[in-house]
Amino acid sequence: MNIILIDPEEVINNQITLTDKRSVHITKVLQARCGDILRTGLINGPMGNSRVVSITKNSVTLATNHSGPKPQRPQTDLILALPRPIMLKRIFSQAATLGVGQIFLINANRVEKSFFSASLLEQDNIYSHLLHGLEQAVDTLVPKVSIHTRFKPFIEDYLPEIIKNYPVKIVAHPGDFPLLPQRVSLPISQRTLLAIGPEGGWVDYEIEKFQEIGILPFTMGQRILRVDTAVPALLSQVELLRAI
Amino acid sequence: MNIILIDPEEVINNQITLTDKRSVHITKVLQARCGDILRTGLINGPMGNSRVVSITKNSVTLATNHSGPKPQRPQTDLILALPRPIMLKRIFSQAATLGVGQIFLINANRVEKSFFSASLLEQDNIYSHLLHGLEQAVDTLVPKVSIHTRFKPFIEDYLPEIIKNYPVKIVAHPGDFPLLPQRVSLPISQRTLLAIGPEGGWVDYEIEKFQEIGILPFTMGQRILRVDTAVPALLSQVELLRAI
Repeated sequence: MNIILIDPEEVINNQITLTDKRSVHITKVLQARCGDILRTGLINGPMGNSRVVSITKNSVTLATNHSGPKPQRPQTDLILALPRPIMLKRIFSQAATLGVGQIFLINANRVEKSFFSASLLEQDNIYSHLLHGLEQAVDTLVPKVSIHTRFKPFIEDYLPEIIKNYPVKIVAHPGDFPLLPQRVSLPISQRTLLAIGPEGGWVDYEIEKFQEIGILPFTMGQRILRVDTAVPALLSQVELLRAI
Repeated sequence: MNIILIDPEEVINNQITLTDKRSVHITKVLQARCGDILRTGLINGPMGNSRVVSITKNSVTLATNHSGPKPQRPQTDLILALPRPIMLKRIFSQAATLGVGQIFLINANRVEKSFFSASLLEQDNIYSHLLHGLEQAVDTLVPKVSIHTRFKPFIEDYLPEIIKNYPVKIVAHPGDFPLLPQRVSLPISQRTLLAIGPEGGWVDYEIEKFQEIGILPFTMGQRILRVDTAVPALLSQVELLRAI
């Protein structure tokens, strides 16, 4: 927890009393004392520094001050074929840490249908894993997550509406495609939509549908990655190509 | 398991009988039948295709053929401040998947000393996690792993001996340093030694010692990554900069 994240609704008269894992973190890990200044942030809002005004056995009260900068929304959004729940948990956290604006969780031929009924997909659970990633990264902007249970309506009806927001549109797929640096114009300086397939990959039909609407396939090379390796690998590669 | 890995000592007269998780994978996941050809590889040796010659309730016998190419050793080696065991397990597997030649696990000021007594550091345990990563990536070359319990002898005595093998030598550290693409000559075309610190980062003394022997610091940007995110992120970034 490199920043204490606070819901704006929790703050009353510029004070907040914490009684959950945040207060435990402040007393046990940070070993803070009254008067100490801690890095805090309002969820989806600005960051700042808050002062510890009192500590009891089970609570910590902060005088909040969030006059710092509001982070900028990351420039990369992610289309992700729904992975198995145990992976998705880590992916939510890692994607939030690395920085994504939105995650579109979609169906695909090789997605097991049962994954869509996982309790992890309940909003509260998604949210807690995303916050965990933001607390690590020192960011306040919670990635938006939407769930799309049918591939064809997503790609034929939903995606064409939003795709004009993305000058860079790419899909990772093994095969005889260019590598990422040869697939995009360098440096990447614009909003990017990155699609990553399920274990076993997209089927040909899916890649054709992506290509039809201008999402271009690239290969990651010879090695086959698990989805929970591919997500941090590709997000950080796209980010690197912004700084080239 | 995208390749079945076989210890050369297991093969007798070009046949092997499997009775472990590999035979379970072949029968249950691949649902192979007699006569089927499977992708196999000799550990630290060439890859090839082996034919299923018999299947019993608890075993699968293959006629092996490893006349394929021997993979090339990855060009990146990793110095890693020893992370907590639960992370290290995943890091072994992910590093092997992404491709590293050698992992130097070292001590540092912010490494908890107890981590060095973790059972995960026994050779058999390390090996099984590395193999798991290779089975995913379709590679046969097991990364070498060495453990260095004292920072100063590692950096003063051990490292100067081997460092001439690495034209590119870099250490990730937050602060006012260049980003990775500005730290190296592009494209990276030579052996690279990449150092990644513990949770909380290296201390100043450690960064000075790295710099003294020519290992140059770079920053990953504003976001603070957990070590098990930083490892796949940085390994895949270095790899990308080889293809730029």
